Amino acid sequence: MKVVVIGSGTAGSNFALFMRKLDRRAEITVIGKEPTMQYSPCALPHVVSGTIEKPEDVIVFPNEFYERQKINLMLNTEAKEIDRERKVVVTDRGEVPYDRLVLATGSRAFVPPIKGVEKEGVFTLKSLNDVRRIKSYIAERKPKRAVVVGAGLIGLEGAEAFAKLGMEVLVVELMDHLMPTMLDRDTANLVQREMEQHGVSFRFGVAVSEIVGDPVRAVKVGDEEVPAELVLIATGVRANVDLAIKAGLEVNRGIIVNEHLQTSDPDVYAVGDCAEVIDAVTGERTLSQLGTSAVRMAKVAAEHIAGKEATFKPVFNTAITELFGLEIGTFGITEERARKAGIEVVVGKFRGSTKPEYYPGGKPITVKAIFRKADGRLVGAQIVGGERVWGRVMTLSALAQKGATAEDVAYLETAYAPPISPTIDPIAVAGEMALRRFR
Amino acid sequence: MKVVVIGSGTAGSNFALFMRKLDRRAEITVIGKEPTMQYSPCALPHVVSGTIEKPEDVIVFPNEFYERQKINLMLNTEAKEIDRERKVVVTDRGEVPYDRLVLATGSRAFVPPIKGVEKEGVFTLKSLNDVRRIKSYIAERKPKRAVVVGAGLIGLEGAEAFAKLGMEVLVVELMDHLMPTMLDRDTANLVQREMEQHGVSFRFGVAVSEIVGDPVRAVKVGDEEVPAELVLIATGVRANVDLAIKAGLEVNRGIIVNEHLQTSDPDVYAVGDCAEVIDAVTGERTLSQLGTSAVRMAKVAAEHIAGKEATFKPVFNTAITELFGLEIGTFGITEERARKAGIEVVVGKFRGSTKPEYYPGGKPITVKAIFRKADGRLVGAQIVGGERVWGRVMTLSALAQKGATAEDVAYLETAYAPPISPTIDPIAVAGEMALRRFR
Repeated sequence: MKVVVIGSGTAGSNFALFMRKLDRRAEITVIGKEPTMQYSPCALPHVVSGTIEKPEDVIVFPNEFYERQKINLMLNTEAKEIDRERKVVVTDRGEVPYDRLVLATGSRAFVPPIKGVEKEGVFTLKSLNDVRRIKSYIAERKPKRAVVVGAGLIGLEGAEAFAKLGMEVLVVELMDHLMPTMLDRDTANLVQREMEQHGVSFRFGVAVSEIVGDPVRAVKVGDEEVPAELVLIATGVRANVDLAIKAGLEVNRGIIVNEHLQTSDPDVYAVGDCAEVIDAVTGERTLSQLGTSAVRMAKVAAEHIAGKEATFKPVFNTAITELFGLEIGTFGITEERARKAGIEVVVGKFRGSTKPEYYPGGKPITVKAIFRKADGRLVGAQIVGGERVWGRVMTLSALAQKGATAEDVAYLETAYAPPISPTIDPIAVAGEMALRRFR
Repeated sequence: MKVVVIGSGTAGSNFALFMRKLDRRAEITVIGKEPTMQYSPCALPHVVSGTIEKPEDVIVFPNEFYERQKINLMLNTEAKEIDRERKVVVTDRGEVPYDRLVLATGSRAFVPPIKGVEKEGVFTLKSLNDVRRIKSYIAERKPKRAVVVGAGLIGLEGAEAFAKLGMEVLVVELMDHLMPTMLDRDTANLVQREMEQHGVSFRFGVAVSEIVGDPVRAVKVGDEEVPAELVLIATGVRANVDLAIKAGLEVNRGIIVNEHLQTSDPDVYAVGDCAEVIDAVTGERTLSQLGTSAVRMAKVAAEHIAGKEATFKPVFNTAITELFGLEIGTFGITEERARKAGIEVVVGKFRGSTKPEYYPGGKPITVKAIFRKADGRLVGAQIVGGERVWGRVMTLSALAQKGATAEDVAYLETAYAPPISPTIDPIAVAGEMALRRFR
């Protein structure tokens, strides 16, 4: 069987590896524009800050690793067209026939039409090349002030990196608080306060209208000119769907797939940032665009091609980040988004400590758990705290993935030890808070 | 309504507080032998080591806190007898009438009949007084060598404390590896190796037969005399059931209760270390004897007395500890115990890193997940690692509590960020390992 993958990012690379594990004899070919296989886009801000030393360090495996597993790499190669009749991919280096095709075309940074956005000193932070360009610009020009456009994960992680490098940083966000798709205003405020204490400023509810100077020397925020020698555009990503559209596949904001990750053509799959999957809370189509989702999609597609009954479940988009030592974990729907979607929710919120009072070193932690009023189910959470947020958001996410209710959370059996966690965990208290509102 | 609690430990104190929250007018009385209310027995080793400064620091709330909530405290008081006909508790300070009685009599350290065990310098580590005695003995005698009898949680945490104070420590355990009820030999070995690197020695499969000298100057381990100026007996605890037996209640190793924590007399409840509950894996009666279980039992009993439909679910005994920076988390059944119980299991085990390779500072972590062959359910886990073990054992425990299978673990949606966790989490890999053995 000839299995061809278009895209050498997280989804494509992992797909190739899973496929090889499941089928020793399949002919697997990866067609990729970049010269390397999978690297972690989430790691890029940490390359900017210098925590990860060299851009190349984020490449997970060298090309030889894939070749040793008899995966054919056609890198530096562009897929131009898919001929579904003849079952071939047309590339700038010739035609590649397939029995099963996997689209792992990923996403690209969305750049809004700001005047002057093409000028020197204005960057996105999506690829290894972006990070190389930013690092050499910083080395050369030694910018003192940075403006970040967009307060999503990449924007804030970029802001942290610039601040760590000694720059004055302003984050400009069109919505009224940071991480607007992942946090409500109350939890976002906790993050904002922490970042402000580390010298990052914020402007909300305004747009950047113009980049001034070339190389950039200021940014117009509303009517105000803010001096800045470096600008990061972090206003989200868009799925790469051109090839799929051209091939006549069903496409919405992403490529539409079923629970086996098959597109409207059952011999063509789509995985990763380019695929539109199902939101576990709303049941609607959504772009997950997380590395973890990409890997799980790759696994399910490989298994399905190998003849197994694998299905990809609706996503909660469980995510975590760390900003100046503060951990932020989220999944599911926010209170604000639920209101807009007309979903009535019951919220349990608790601010406690990560350790019992009698043990030194506990840090504040806020747990906000969101339950659907109609069926009592846990549909989202936002946790902001000084440590061990990953474990708490994962515990709640795992419960949500298994259909847990406020009662399950309130009576959850938790693990306690003085150096590690309190006897009654903040997540259980948040569950209890919500449960009382249900009764 | 007159609600009387016998026992002022974790279970009794929390019960009184929950009861007050649920019923503003109930007459609540706590009868306790000790002069204070709840403190954390798990915190005691950290008082020995000096991490927690004063023994009194582990007292959660001062007595006045309870009194302000109109909870009558009869401390320094011994309950002698329960007259269930007349519904009174007979104490050494008079009779106390009740409508509902809650037994929270706790447990005591079990001291095996070792020759000379009553000598000076031989301690248990179960109460505030124990810790005061140990601290003043250490201050006075400055012991250089300690022998710990028993390699359970308290034994190992005691060993760590002594080692941190500069003593040479030998742990003697009758079974063939440490933490024998919570870990299998393979995971126990990881802990042993770490502790040995911090100067703690082990002898397995032998008993301590005699304490030599008074104050102690050596311990006979098998035929060998091992010099030691301090001995800690940490061979487990026994439920305090004398009062319940005398009252004619059904008692096994602990006081037998139903899912509402009612004893064989529906007006008498039992909660905490003295109560025998149901093991979630075997379905058999078990003593949970964890602080977290005590608190949840207290809550359920209070709710049931207040007229709510609360039930206490079977326990997985999720537990965590930290020894020399290594975290150990467990729940459910071990492979060894499953074998003895005739339960066929499928194991998934994976040794990975707590962070992605490209991010500095990742630490080794071993995840062993145990599934029941008959129905595929997750029935136990053992996790040993350098960080973030709490979150992983809690995630798996939460999944087990919701009846998850190997498939649920293998396809679990996890949260990823380079400074915090890998894209494919070790717990998901362990699930995948097990899943392959099922197929």
